[in-house]
Amino acid sequence: TKMAGDLRAAAAAARLPLASAEFAAHMDAADPLRDFRAEFNIPRANGRESIYLCGHSLGAQPKRSRKYVEKELEEWADLGVRGHFLSGRPWVSINEPLEPHMETIVGAHSGEVACMNSLTTNMHLLIVPFFRPTATRFKIVIEDHAFPSDHYAVVSQLRVHNLDPKSALIVVKPREGEELLRTEDILALLEREGPSIALVMLPGVQYYTGQFLDIPSITSAAHRHGAAVGWDLAHAVGNIPLRLHDWNVDFAFWCSYKYLNSSPGGLGGAFIHNKHAHKKLSEFPRFLGWWSHRGQDRFKMATDEAFEERLRAGAGSFQLSNPSVLTSVAMLGSLELFSKATMTQLRAKSLKLTAYLELLIDALGGVVTIITPRDPQFRGAQLSLRMPHLKAVIAALEERGVICDFREPDVIRVAPVPLYNNFSDVFAFVQTLQKVLSEVGAKPRL
Amino acid sequence: TKMAGDLRAAAAAARLPLASAEFAAHMDAADPLRDFRAEFNIPRANGRESIYLCGHSLGAQPKRSRKYVEKELEEWADLGVRGHFLSGRPWVSINEPLEPHMETIVGAHSGEVACMNSLTTNMHLLIVPFFRPTATRFKIVIEDHAFPSDHYAVVSQLRVHNLDPKSALIVVKPREGEELLRTEDILALLEREGPSIALVMLPGVQYYTGQFLDIPSITSAAHRHGAAVGWDLAHAVGNIPLRLHDWNVDFAFWCSYKYLNSSPGGLGGAFIHNKHAHKKLSEFPRFLGWWSHRGQDRFKMATDEAFEERLRAGAGSFQLSNPSVLTSVAMLGSLELFSKATMTQLRAKSLKLTAYLELLIDALGGVVTIITPRDPQFRGAQLSLRMPHLKAVIAALEERGVICDFREPDVIRVAPVPLYNNFSDVFAFVQTLQKVLSEVGAKPRL
Ligand SMILES: Cc1ncc(COP(=O)(O)O)c(C=O)c1O
Ligand SMILES: Cc1ncc(COP(=O)(O)O)c(C=O)c1O
Repeated sequence: TKMAGDLRAAAAAARLPLASAEFAAHMDAADPLRDFRAEFNIPRANGRESIYLCGHSLGAQPKRSRKYVEKELEEWADLGVRGHFLSGRPWVSINEPLEPHMETIVGAHSGEVACMNSLTTNMHLLIVPFFRPTATRFKIVIEDHAFPSDHYAVVSQLRVHNLDPKSALIVVKPREGEELLRTEDILALLEREGPSIALVMLPGVQYYTGQFLDIPSITSAAHRHGAAVGWDLAHAVGNIPLRLHDWNVDFAFWCSYKYLNSSPGGLGGAFIHNKHAHKKLSEFPRFLGWWSHRGQDRFKMATDEAFEERLRAGAGSFQLSNPSVLTSVAMLGSLELFSKATMTQLRAKSLKLTAYLELLIDALGGVVTIITPRDPQFRGAQLSLRMPHLKAVIAALEERGVICDFREPDVIRVAPVPLYNNFSDVFAFVQTLQKVLSEVGAKPRL
Repeated sequence: TKMAGDLRAAAAAARLPLASAEFAAHMDAADPLRDFRAEFNIPRANGRESIYLCGHSLGAQPKRSRKYVEKELEEWADLGVRGHFLSGRPWVSINEPLEPHMETIVGAHSGEVACMNSLTTNMHLLIVPFFRPTATRFKIVIEDHAFPSDHYAVVSQLRVHNLDPKSALIVVKPREGEELLRTEDILALLEREGPSIALVMLPGVQYYTGQFLDIPSITSAAHRHGAAVGWDLAHAVGNIPLRLHDWNVDFAFWCSYKYLNSSPGGLGGAFIHNKHAHKKLSEFPRFLGWWSHRGQDRFKMATDEAFEERLRAGAGSFQLSNPSVLTSVAMLGSLELFSKATMTQLRAKSLKLTAYLELLIDALGGVVTIITPRDPQFRGAQLSLRMPHLKAVIAALEERGVICDFREPDVIRVAPVPLYNNFSDVFAFVQTLQKVLSEVGAKPRL
């Protein structure tokens, strides 16, 4: 690939071996985003900073997020209920500062995003208006290896409509002997089953393989066949620049504790395309709460018939409850860093970091298999690896201060996160992996 | 009332005037729960502790909650993703320590409670299986002055089922010229409309008037007519001892930032009676997520057809997502205090505190009207007050360091919370109110 060529050229120009701590340090010195690492508390192991390559699972802590949480604890202690209006970040609108950052990250227009609840909850709230099965159009498409929560959510939504998953759930799979989904197969399925499909719900980045699906092509094909399209962006958001509005995505949802570093179990997110924003409740029925009501009217506590006309437009109308202050500000700290760094710069660095990881893994000589797409266009930061003695390897890595993760049945997932990881992390990881593999009896090169 | 008599007798025995700082201090000295106040950061005003009587809106901060949040921030910084298993309070089960406390507070059996999401979200998730309208049984009963979120939620659920609130929403009202709901009127309505009612959803404690409804009578009447019954316990939980299981309540939901002091916008709660716990998904369809799955199986990531048999029984099956760590531990600190104090003792103190408040208010001589029921059996800590020059009064109170709240259109709500308020707070409040009323031209006695 071009990126691999660039890295080799950079090593040659610097007269350093590609697989060396010196070259990694050289690349880090030239990294325009290098200072962002100091904004984070990198998790520790054995009394020192770990090689933390697990941001696809739980993001490291932004130092400012911690400060912001401590600040609101102070405000609560001091102000009590008056914090709703008098806190430095007034609680009645504590979600609002998050929205412009989040809109930029996912490529949304103003009003298309809400920061609220958790991923699976948002998934359900969004499915409600988009899955209105009829006698002929009642099927949902997901993928075979969907994250369990998505699978259970969709099955349960079918059950709520008295539909049997046996007839109403369509599962797209990789071809026999393959790991990845092919866009052409998904499109062919849509072509075949089109008129019966009510909803297509797929992952932006597949959690297991790290594959980034072709969101615009799949979305537009589904629309052509009359289906609504929702995307699970748990592993895509903050990882790959998204353009949800331009891609004409109907809805999307995500969690923010992975690449968005918003704290464990932190605030989820939801996107609704503005083309649905002005639909009336009767044509686009969804679940409401008092927070769906426009801010200035909310405290009038009016329950007259006209309340439907005073709903917030867009994603905000899906916000049911007053937001959690602690999780909102925990998220704010991280989102500010994204806005400073920009997704464009983050992606540029991410492409390099992951290419470097790939090069070094390949240099191990086939002991380790990468199941993630080789084409950087179809992946984010994460590479999913197969190797012998998987569980022994992961334990030995952890003992040596490397944190990545294992997913049933048989991959190790590794993600160099451009906001706080660097080339030195990547080199240290592969060097450690090489040692560990040798010890367990595999024969890596490098 | 008996309680008023007891207070008068105590004042006589101590040879102190009832309406005096000395008598209040005397009562505080004899209060077995007096030390709990030191567990809280009482909100401040004008550089000193305020007279904080607003726990019905936002609870004061338990000092230990703040410590617990800071501890998990530390764990996140230090452990990253490994906190799921290695944190002192492992995140994978961070909600579990909350449950036994919560079960005791609401009178639930083991497994009947989940601590999750927020109030309105839980309300929707719980309505889904309990509102399955048919051609003949399709109506929902709420009260005329329902909290807007409940009103909007129910209207939106009707819309999702293509039902028109005009025909499917029944609103119970106080009688002409009255403020409070009469149990007999609710029962008569159930008698009249019984066969058409699918769901009755009412507040445990009405947020505006402070009226505590007769949950067991209404629940059993609704059941007799074949309707399911759900209770909004926002203002009842942690305020009045509840016996949801024994009362045969189908479901209930609450927030925890009021009497439960769990942080602004903190974790909500849900109750599902165990009689529904072992129902299959096909007979009791509800929204699911991976956290609905039993803990030991959750990470197997299995999406086989048998997953429905591995759902958690009871309220846990409604938990969709991995829980927020920060809001969970913020809540834990407070719940530990409830378990130490016990709802029985808290209620005993609450009855006295509110009776004292009532006596002193009445001593103001009719300038201030109490709209909350006079019978302590039908109210919790809160009294809702009407008086002249309402907005001027509330501003002047706040200037003098008294924090209570105003609710549209015309009440001031005041709640002496037994966990951290005391008789001195109550006396100071009424004394200040008396001054303020004189200044604005009303003529209070005292
Ligand atoms: C009685 C009642 N119901 C519902 C709500 C809405 O709560 P939330 O915003 O947590 O969903 C409130 C909030 O104060 C309430 O008092
Ligand atoms: C792809 C994907 N979807 C859904 C979820 C479930 O998230 P939550 O527990 O926040 O609902 C996860 C969690 O890791 C995930 O990775």
